[in-house]
Amino acid sequence: MAISHHLVASVVQKGDMVVDATCGNGYDTIFLAQLVGDEGSVLALDIQAVAIENTHTRLTELGLIHRVQLINASHAYLDEYLPNQISAAMFNLGYLPGGNHQITTSGPETTTAIEHCIKRLRPGGLITIVAYPGHPGGREEKKYVKDFLSQLDQKEYETWQLNFINQRNQPPCLFVVSKLDGGAL
Amino acid sequence: MAISHHLVASVVQKGDMVVDATCGNGYDTIFLAQLVGDEGSVLALDIQAVAIENTHTRLTELGLIHRVQLINASHAYLDEYLPNQISAAMFNLGYLPGGNHQITTSGPETTTAIEHCIKRLRPGGLITIVAYPGHPGGREEKKYVKDFLSQLDQKEYETWQLNFINQRNQPPCLFVVSKLDGGAL
Repeated sequence: MAISHHLVASVVQKGDMVVDATCGNGYDTIFLAQLVGDEGSVLALDIQAVAIENTHTRLTELGLIHRVQLINASHAYLDEYLPNQISAAMFNLGYLPGGNHQITTSGPETTTAIEHCIKRLRPGGLITIVAYPGHPGGREEKKYVKDFLSQLDQKEYETWQLNFINQRNQPPCLFVVSKLDGGAL
Repeated sequence: MAISHHLVASVVQKGDMVVDATCGNGYDTIFLAQLVGDEGSVLALDIQAVAIENTHTRLTELGLIHRVQLINASHAYLDEYLPNQISAAMFNLGYLPGGNHQITTSGPETTTAIEHCIKRLRPGGLITIVAYPGHPGGREEKKYVKDFLSQLDQKEYETWQLNFINQRNQPPCLFVVSKLDGGAL
């Protein structure tokens, strides 16, 4: 959901380190690479080689590839690559659009990855997670993520769930985690 | 919720006409007046004279009063004052902080006002509504607003509900209406 772009753009500055935990076809990676500028860096992971290839191609065409570190691995292994401090991380769950619908993210892997990102998140930074309850396993993953986020300490983090309320057919929902820096986001 | 400020700031430009439907102590009015610049204008209403006075004082102190039209009337009468096109409107429901808690907004008045704003909203513009289910009548008003927004045509509008998921004690929730302009917000 592009509302996640509005929120991320409101906190990311040129020179920042940010994460695309599930780069897929590179839509969020490109957006993040444009935000951080030549001084910043995007860490982008995907478990599928075809996703990494698609993203690599698009970034190269746009002259943005030098701003991105692409890793072909599950987001569950994010902590092996994460810099010390990030200002934002984006997650887009489910399957690769145009790819094999049997290969999907899962609740335990996703919450492990979110936990890693939370530990490195700077005050004022945020994490966005788009979940798709409409595919097999997607409903369980959404619940898993929500249960995890519900337990974060409200003195340190604000977490929200954004639902479409006038859309049919199990629309996606967006979760947002914001690390407080004295004031609410 | 200041997340509403992030969203409104992402669509309002200098020179725009915008609305604070319930100016209260002027917090959102000041924010909007800063966004629209000297060429723009904020229409701000409140049913309570003390709210109008408080907002007037703050705007004057900040040198922003010339950007704001203050009207002492219920937001249900917004249509008498609305310009032809607005890029954003903000609603903060419930009672006046520091004022009489018996004087609150109500579902029918609020949805009437939202409806007026929707008719004048430019494509790409948005409306934010913060609802407080924790006070008497607040729960009913929230439901009333949600039922109204749920019926908006999804081909023309996106509507979301944002809930805190790690806060105790009936936290406020935020509704957002976005008028589509070919792409989702």
